[in-house]
This record gives sequence, structure tokens and C-alpha cells, in this order.
Amino acid sequence: MLERYGHGGDLRTAQELFGLPADQFHDFSANMNPYGPPACVAEVLRTYTDSIDRYPDPSVRELRRKLGIHHDLDPSCVLVGNGAAELIDLAVRVYRPEVTAVTGPSFVEYADAARKCGSPIHVLPLYPENDFRLTADTIRRALLDFRRRGIQPGQALWFLGSPNNPTGQLVEPAIIRELLLEGERVIVDEAFMDFVPDAANYSLLREAEVNERLTVIRSMTKFYAIPGIRLGYAAGSPQTIAELGRLQVPWSVNSLSQQIGSAVLDEKQYAENTLTWLKQERPWLESQLSALGLRVYPGEVNYILFSIPAEFNLTSKELQHEMGVRGVLIRDASGFDGLDETFCRIAVRFREEHLRLLDVMKNVLADPSRP
Amino acid sequence: MLERYGHGGDLRTAQELFGLPADQFHDFSANMNPYGPPACVAEVLRTYTDSIDRYPDPSVRELRRKLGIHHDLDPSCVLVGNGAAELIDLAVRVYRPEVTAVTGPSFVEYADAARKCGSPIHVLPLYPENDFRLTADTIRRALLDFRRRGIQPGQALWFLGSPNNPTGQLVEPAIIRELLLEGERVIVDEAFMDFVPDAANYSLLREAEVNERLTVIRSMTKFYAIPGIRLGYAAGSPQTIAELGRLQVPWSVNSLSQQIGSAVLDEKQYAENTLTWLKQERPWLESQLSALGLRVYPGEVNYILFSIPAEFNLTSKELQHEMGVRGVLIRDASGFDGLDETFCRIAVRFREEHLRLLDVMKNVLADPSRP
Repeated sequence: MLERYGHGGDLRTAQELFGLPADQFHDFSANMNPYGPPACVAEVLRTYTDSIDRYPDPSVRELRRKLGIHHDLDPSCVLVGNGAAELIDLAVRVYRPEVTAVTGPSFVEYADAARKCGSPIHVLPLYPENDFRLTADTIRRALLDFRRRGIQPGQALWFLGSPNNPTGQLVEPAIIRELLLEGERVIVDEAFMDFVPDAANYSLLREAEVNERLTVIRSMTKFYAIPGIRLGYAAGSPQTIAELGRLQVPWSVNSLSQQIGSAVLDEKQYAENTLTWLKQERPWLESQLSALGLRVYPGEVNYILFSIPAEFNLTSKELQHEMGVRGVLIRDASGFDGLDETFCRIAVRFREEHLRLLDVMKNVLADPSRP
Repeated sequence: MLERYGHGGDLRTAQELFGLPADQFHDFSANMNPYGPPACVAEVLRTYTDSIDRYPDPSVRELRRKLGIHHDLDPSCVLVGNGAAELIDLAVRVYRPEVTAVTGPSFVEYADAARKCGSPIHVLPLYPENDFRLTADTIRRALLDFRRRGIQPGQALWFLGSPNNPTGQLVEPAIIRELLLEGERVIVDEAFMDFVPDAANYSLLREAEVNERLTVIRSMTKFYAIPGIRLGYAAGSPQTIAELGRLQVPWSVNSLSQQIGSAVLDEKQYAENTLTWLKQERPWLESQLSALGLRVYPGEVNYILFSIPAEFNLTSKELQHEMGVRGVLIRDASGFDGLDETFCRIAVRFREEHLRLLDVMKNVLADPSRP
């Protein structure tokens, strides 16, 4: 299976599985900005030979300074990581939670990181009937359960993706604030928040600066299409940031990532273009998938979750395989907790690629030779 | 102090301390190959824009394959890390040792990583009278002490740098083999082994493949002068490698590092030139430092440990400062366990830079205005 390593965008495995060269796939399995890296990235790469022979700044001063300006945060409230994955890992290692609460479905790294630390997982179920929205009710039920089991405020760690991966749903800030008022410790993963047009109404980045129990994680690799270099950051109180940083491997963030991170933050036009494209292209792709007879779930971001209705008699794994051999990669989402074998996730890309995707998908769905 | 972040090569801090632009220092504080990155690195950077928008191969297949060929190891015996620092960190987290044995002096990351895991440190003293060589006697004394305290074989973790940093001394393989026969778990840090002309007589890389209790760590950033990107690897049995890899953060090694690592391994001429240069330049610089009245310690690699005799009435910190304001950075080695405030470390570089270093040093040592 394509998710052998648990994630989308693994072109090397796709090549082994589907017998095409890695660069000949249309990749909808990874949620990247289709504009590709902003122009400044090539310029940073061009001059990077001048500084590759020096150690990275161990405390990532310049990028933290720029992130501070970008989000109106004090740099002491920002920790840069070797991808958001490192920050998730640091959080569970610092807090060593009695239990780790994650929604089902959600990004698998939360539970994976928790398990590595020996923390049991508590799944907060999300329901397709409810478009996978997290409700205050689900949260309250979990809190009651924790208290009954003697788990005190601050002993559990809550990982909430907003927007959530793979559903694309935002979490209502009121729900998170209620958790914080209960004394709970919450990590909000806003890896895809840059794609949300009214992010200011949903992001808790600024609140994390002044709340010891709240940490917000962001990724720079999806929005700026630079997953090759790994780059994420966390916002939290100065004490939280110091605690997370204490366990970080020295020079964890290499100097190229630091330089590229600093450069892309100046690309205001790129950011604007991205939001304009998404506003247009996501609804269009949603409607086309629905027209093919697929069940599409609503969301706000650059990827779409859908399920294959029973009448097609086709699993997500089969759909992925049939499309893979035709050079189109989609994410089989049946591996996510809470999703059955009919769920798939695809990235929103450009119209031309969508036409290709839809064409291949139409053929596969209509293929009479399928069992 | 320049070692605010605990290491050499921190030009950003140097700039803050000594008031010169970062690119105007002659940097002898970091142990880099002065040839700079091999030519292929610029070529990889030039084409990297084509792949920065894809995730790194999560299991680093191509570089592991090439390292396997390079060292005649099975790729399943190789784990690539985000710098050797990540591998050191993984080792203590996997083994959670009752005690961590390190030589004094040694690379500070061993003890730092152990402390983060709550492991107490046992220092194996090295003595200047003995040119900081690790002796079988010291090892046996520590073993006796461990057994007396009820620490069984395998419960301690030994970190031995060979060549050791900052002394440059190799560890006799016989000493390590004796430890292994006693059932001890040993990590040999061969970060600088590529610089050793008769490395084959000292490296334990191949033995690690077949010994569950031995892991060897290597760095690619010193020899190939690419510390900006972070790149190291570990060799061990397939089981050891799997255990270490299980705790690794996903995509920990970014795709640029993977590509550069694969490319530099083909640079045979670069490697030859480096050994030829070092064979010539190290003895010359040693003799010049001695001629200035400094006490130089013998070693095999691209850095030199020396101490300032009492008659100069000058601490290493003062020497570092006086040279720093004159644009020459050296490492104040007094922060290393077991070294007093007269010890410094400098990298071996090219003749012209040595002449500049020696000139500035001579002036500082002779300055009558010193207190």
C-alpha cells in the first residue's frame, strides 16, 4: 500500500508500487500548495553555497524574529522545529500525559508520538452524519470520563487539529476555550490554518502566548510547498517554549530551512494568490466529485475528504490502486481511525490537473471489468 | 562568551560579541574541512528547486544504499539522522541507561543528552600527563565501580569519541572490545574518523553490524564541510537500527540532506585531497604553536588542543576574546569537563589562514598591556 510509511506524498513508494517514474505522477495524496515554492526559494538556494559550511544558528534568531512580527508575537513565545512532527513529539515528551486525547479521525502523528511515550490514547469520535465536526458534547463526555478515572486537569494532553486532517473541519475556538477553563492542556495543530480565509476568527496563536496550558503548532511546508526541507513552529508562553526547547536536539532546524522560512514570510502576493485560487477551485472540485456520485464532506482547506457510496462496490484502496497505475495518486484514508474502507482524501490543485483527476476517476468508477 | 550555545562555529554570537560582520571572521572554532563543500553540492542545490515541493523519502533509501556500499554494510544496518546529535539523543532515549559513562573531556552532547533523560553521568578521567589517552585501567576501574553499585552489564551506556573531541585522541579498539566482552553497551562516536589516514585500523563500523551492544555514529558535516544541513548516520545491528529508528521523528532527515549525502560519497578526489592536506598542515601548525610557547597535545585529526602555560598569565577565555576582537575565532575549551581555564581548541585550516592566526596570536601573547 502507498501509505506504507503512514503518509501521503511518498513518491518513491508510489514508483515501486505502480511502476512509473516518480516524476510522472499527478500527486493528490499530499496536501501541498500547487503554486509550488515561492520565487524567493530559488534565490535562497542559489546563494546557500555561501553559508552551508557554517553551523545553523542554534537558537534560530532571525526566523523567530520574523515570525514574531508576522503574527505579532514575542520571539520568546516561538519555537521553530524540524517540521511540525518534531514539535508534536516534543510536546508529548515534555508533558508525559496520563492520557492523550485525539479526534478520530485525525493526523496519525499525534497518536504515534503519544504511543512512543507510552501514553494511552483516548479517541474523541467524529461522525460523518455531523460532517466530522467536533462538538462540545463529545468534549464534555471525555472530561467526565477522565475525572471518573481520576485523571486530574493538566494530566491529559489534547491534540486538536484545526483545520483537522483529513476532514478539513475547523474546531470552534469556544470549545477549546472551555477545555482551557477546565484546566486542561491543549495542543492545537494549525498546520493548515494559513489556507483558511478568515483564519483570524479561528486561530488561537495569540492566545497561546499568554496561556500556559495552550500551545499552537503551525507548519510552513504545506502553504509554501516546501515539505522537502521540513519547517514548523510552535507558539506558547515563554515558559512552555523553554520547556519544549530544552528537549530539542541541538541545531535541529538546519540553516537552509531557517533562511527559506525567513524569506517566504515576505511573499505577500503569493499568499494572496493562494487564497484566491482556493476560494475558486475548492468549491468547483467539490461539485465535480459530487457529480460523479461521490459523497463529499465540507471543509475549509486545500484538501477534500470524500467517501465512495456502496453502489460503486469499490474500496478506497482499490480506487487508489486503479488510479495509481494510471498515474494519479490519491490518499487512501481508510487507515485513519474512525474512517471505513470507503474514505479517500485528495488535495485541491489546479483546474487542468483536476480535469485529469476527474477523467481518470470517472473511468475507474465506470469500469465494467471491476469485480 | 562565544560558547553561549555550547559549541564552536556560532558566528551569529561572535558578531554580537566582537562587533564584526559574521562573514569577516577567520573561524577556527568549528572543526570544518577548509576545502569547503565539494563541487557536487552546488549542483545539488541548483536542481533542488525541482524536488523541494515533495516530502523527503521517510526511510532515506538511496542514501542508506550508498552508505552501505561505501562502508560495505547492509542498508538495514544504517540509520541516517538529522546530524549526529539526533542519533546521540535517540541512543540515550532508547537505552535509558542507569548511568552514562563519558570521558572528561569529551563532546558535551553525550552528557547533555543523558541528563535530558535523567541518567546520571560517570566521568572517565583523561589526563594531560598521558596526552588524554583513554586507558584500559580507567575503564576497568569504572567497571568495578559499576558492579559494586549493582549496575549490571548492559545497564550502563558508554559514549566514547574516537577520535575524541576536543583532544583528537583515538581510542584503542582493544579497549572497546574488552568492554563489549564484559557485556557493556557502547556508542562509539566516529564523527571525525574520516580525517584519520589509517581509519581502517581504528574504526569499529563493521563490527557494529554484528554486535547488538555496539553502535557507531558518524557525521558527514565535518569532513564535507556541510554543517548547515545537518547529516549523520549510525551503524548497528538491524535490531539496534530498528530500535533507534522507532523513536525518530518522521521525515527527520530532509530531502536536501539526503541528496547531498548521496552526492558527496562519490567525491573520491576530494577525500584524497583532504587527507593529503591534513598530513602536511597539522604537523606544521603544531610546530608553530609550540614555537609560540604553547603546550600542544598530540592527536590525529583536523583540530588541535593546546594549553597556555602559566607564564603567559592569560586564560583561554581572555585569549579567545583578544583574538575575537581581532577577527579570529578560537574555541575556549575550558568549558569541557576535565580541562582548566588554560585550554583552547582550534581547527586545522590552510597555510595562509594559519599565518593570520599565528600573527594575531603572537601579538596577543606578547601584548604588554595585558593585566
